[in-house]
Amino acid sequence: MVSGRGIVLSGEELALLAAVFWRGGLSRAEVAARLDVSRSKANALLLGLSARDLLSESGTRSSTGGRRPEVLGLSDAIGVFAAIDLGATSLDVAVLAPDMTVLAHRAEPADVRNPPTQVFARARDLLRALLRERDLSPTAVRAIGVGVPGPVAFETGQLVEPPLMPGWQRFSIRDCLAEDYDAPVFVDNDVNLLALGTLWQVRAQLQNFIVIKIGTGIGCGIICHGALYRGADGSAGDVGHICVDPNGPRCSCGNVGCVEAMAAGPALGRLAMEAARSGRSAPLQAVWLERGALSAIDLGDASRAGDPVANRIIQEAGAQIGEMLASVINFFNPSHVFVGGGVAQIGPSLLAAIRHSIYRRSLALSTRHLDIRYMPNPHTNGILGAGVLAIQEALLRPAQPRSGSDRARTSPE
Amino acid sequence: MVSGRGIVLSGEELALLAAVFWRGGLSRAEVAARLDVSRSKANALLLGLSARDLLSESGTRSSTGGRRPEVLGLSDAIGVFAAIDLGATSLDVAVLAPDMTVLAHRAEPADVRNPPTQVFARARDLLRALLRERDLSPTAVRAIGVGVPGPVAFETGQLVEPPLMPGWQRFSIRDCLAEDYDAPVFVDNDVNLLALGTLWQVRAQLQNFIVIKIGTGIGCGIICHGALYRGADGSAGDVGHICVDPNGPRCSCGNVGCVEAMAAGPALGRLAMEAARSGRSAPLQAVWLERGALSAIDLGDASRAGDPVANRIIQEAGAQIGEMLASVINFFNPSHVFVGGGVAQIGPSLLAAIRHSIYRRSLALSTRHLDIRYMPNPHTNGILGAGVLAIQEALLRPAQPRSGSDRARTSPE
Repeated sequence: MVSGRGIVLSGEELALLAAVFWRGGLSRAEVAARLDVSRSKANALLLGLSARDLLSESGTRSSTGGRRPEVLGLSDAIGVFAAIDLGATSLDVAVLAPDMTVLAHRAEPADVRNPPTQVFARARDLLRALLRERDLSPTAVRAIGVGVPGPVAFETGQLVEPPLMPGWQRFSIRDCLAEDYDAPVFVDNDVNLLALGTLWQVRAQLQNFIVIKIGTGIGCGIICHGALYRGADGSAGDVGHICVDPNGPRCSCGNVGCVEAMAAGPALGRLAMEAARSGRSAPLQAVWLERGALSAIDLGDASRAGDPVANRIIQEAGAQIGEMLASVINFFNPSHVFVGGGVAQIGPSLLAAIRHSIYRRSLALSTRHLDIRYMPNPHTNGILGAGVLAIQEALLRPAQPRSGSDRARTSPE
Repeated sequence: MVSGRGIVLSGEELALLAAVFWRGGLSRAEVAARLDVSRSKANALLLGLSARDLLSESGTRSSTGGRRPEVLGLSDAIGVFAAIDLGATSLDVAVLAPDMTVLAHRAEPADVRNPPTQVFARARDLLRALLRERDLSPTAVRAIGVGVPGPVAFETGQLVEPPLMPGWQRFSIRDCLAEDYDAPVFVDNDVNLLALGTLWQVRAQLQNFIVIKIGTGIGCGIICHGALYRGADGSAGDVGHICVDPNGPRCSCGNVGCVEAMAAGPALGRLAMEAARSGRSAPLQAVWLERGALSAIDLGDASRAGDPVANRIIQEAGAQIGEMLASVINFFNPSHVFVGGGVAQIGPSLLAAIRHSIYRRSLALSTRHLDIRYMPNPHTNGILGAGVLAIQEALLRPAQPRSGSDRARTSPE
């Protein structure tokens, strides 16, 4: 098997590297047990990987008496991984070590409706500055992971008919970054990266869960059998257009009652404006008169300040998102639902309404142990996911995709 | 690694056996290529498996010139596999060879509302007769796969609060069969077995698809990353209670508008009776007066004979099932939807209505390559699935479940 940069790794070596990456802090004995090989076989594998500067050992793990076991980690000699996480209204760029330590990170507002060359010129500037900040040359970058707020054909790294960013369909993120870096570039949907980031944060201890992002749109990332699931055409998790009300408003997709048209950021802003204009909500009206526009954030502020109209709008949005999730949960029976995205941050009443709606509508068996909570570390989850994508694709995956006639490549476990 | 009956198999040996099982007809060279090992390594593995009577070689595959390559298959010396597939109203029992050739098969009506001891006494009688028919002793049975029409805790093989069969919760299928056979027994939901049977019939060439069964209830089997997906609590695919109409009728589960309450067999029978009683449909009324009851089958017959009322009922049921599937497809993006179950057989107009509704409601990206069709060989699919479950769990799976904190064990790829 050949991984990136011509490194030839056997299936067992890949399994060992992946175990060390995902669990971290494993001792030699734990590695042998995990791979179900003898200690001497494990030692031979470790020796080979250390000789190629892929693994290193250190004695940092605390031990309760006896000889302190040395713990294994991916070697810093591998290089660094660059992460670019582009949201509809935000840009995060980071540099990560092979153990996903964030070495440098910059976040700033962005607008994907701008031309892609302009947005990526800024991303490249930021990445260059971050590398300089850490005294790293561009050649230290081993691979680059990129998240974008639209559907991606994962094999080619191209956006496919992205509704939020129509100008991007013919733009090649790979070619653009190739001007600065001689490193492979992997592009994926931003919500898939949130799922990968969460998988990393729970150290792959959870095998089947979903991540839901509520922002400008509503999307879902799926971890199935311990790996990111992209679906047959790469569009798995596209839950924003699930119908929750056959009598609901018409959506930009042409159908009616899509959850995104009723409960995502733009819909909440519109409902807040209606409440302000009509005078039904005095607090929202005051903010509107001052600023001339209202967002989901304003709605959350008004709700927390006790405005019943704002609160009811949030309750209804949460109920609709919960309706959609109840269908998904009946079908998929995940162990956890992690909720994130800008709109999820507007206050606890949205999550409470989502929870209420899910428990009311899902089957008892599929919610008996279900855990619905905020995504861990939402502000770094996207870049962590981009880093995990980069190292996974460049280093931890067999070079040959497995057989199978599905069109999109799926992640192995 | 230890598989059933104390056979010790390495990870590579398991991978080889699984490749031979799923693909069938592989040559030595193909096995080496598939496992990414050298020809000599592959030969050594094959020799070891042949010596333990797990593999055999034969020269039956046709070849275009040159030396005819010998093809590998699982050895008949492994024994046979028993399959018991219990539906709400049917019982199928079969005996299968290791290559899933059906050696003997009996199907008859059954009623799961009867006491489990009674139903299983009959299943045991049938299995005994089938073995005798093939001159096989009970000790030839290597493992038994059982499908039941209710939720199953897969690890224990126990039904969990089965709505159709309340008396079964405390009945142990394993203990019951242990009276006749010294072989491991694996129990799963009947729809999961349809998914496994379909995976076998497509020779694992499809990695991500769903199977939907429309009968007394509506349920779904999920193949994800090439393996059966059971969910965190084993209830994945429980789609019958997804809401398709907030103003729909009340379901036995307590919620309103569940697709099962509107489009499964009992609902169709009820709608047919209403059309007959009210005189809106003369053909249905005639059958009702003659027999005193109507089923989904009668509805299909009336529709095919040109009755517009029967046809409209089927159209509406198909539209509701399609609505539910559209949500599932937006979330899961399968490559195929296989439709089966007794109600699916009532005529082509139901499948046509399901297709129409899915294409109207799903996103273009997730249906661009979507294939919606009848399940292959519906009459043997369940017992094939039970046979695949039995051989997979008894022979082709590592003895240690993989780590992970999910409660239900998921299938590795």
